[in-house]
Amino acid sequence: MHRHPGFADTPEPPYYAVVFTSRRSPVDEGYAAVAQRMVELAATQPGFLGLESARDEQGLGITVSYWSSLEAIAAWKAHLEHQEAQAAGRQRWYEHYTVRISRVERAYAFDARR
Amino acid sequence: MHRHPGFADTPEPPYYAVVFTSRRSPVDEGYAAVAQRMVELAATQPGFLGLESARDEQGLGITVSYWSSLEAIAAWKAHLEHQEAQAAGRQRWYEHYTVRISRVERAYAFDARR
Repeated sequence: MHRHPGFADTPEPPYYAVVFTSRRSPVDEGYAAVAQRMVELAATQPGFLGLESARDEQGLGITVSYWSSLEAIAAWKAHLEHQEAQAAGRQRWYEHYTVRISRVERAYAFDARR
Repeated sequence: MHRHPGFADTPEPPYYAVVFTSRRSPVDEGYAAVAQRMVELAATQPGFLGLESARDEQGLGITVSYWSSLEAIAAWKAHLEHQEAQAAGRQRWYEHYTVRISRVERAYAFDARR
């Protein structure tokens, strides 16, 4: 249960972040269902801490997933169903993407209601 | 000149990433101009390496800016005009935001045209 929908409820740093920046192709076939499935599947993986995602009207998206360790990130990348989704993404759904793996050192938040 | 509009053309890691995740308030007054100005101003700061940003139709946005050092990030946070924008953001434009400062350890890319 998140107090702030769309925001990841991560623990105190340090932890790891995977920044996935992507430009969608015009091909929609199967994309939404697989993207949703990957979000749900990621959430069940060991070391998963949360996920945030936004895509603008021009098709540029940024998804940041948070993990407890580099090993957890490597295991998720190697997950068979995720591998299949990655292959389909390269074949059909993405024109370009970048993946950046980083170690979160510091984090803070602001809430207007406080 | 970026080959991929919307993507930051960063050097080989290590470098630093600031992940700014935000939920906009219903208040638009002055937001677009200041947001655009901050993107332009950030790009002139020492140690700035690039910026990627996406906001969905529900008002959830992720902006990731890339920097050569923690000192460069601290200097940008302390920049007077940026401080004023941050204050206006807290007073008017954002319901909630998080800032995560991380060290990029590894990065790779995919391009469908290659």
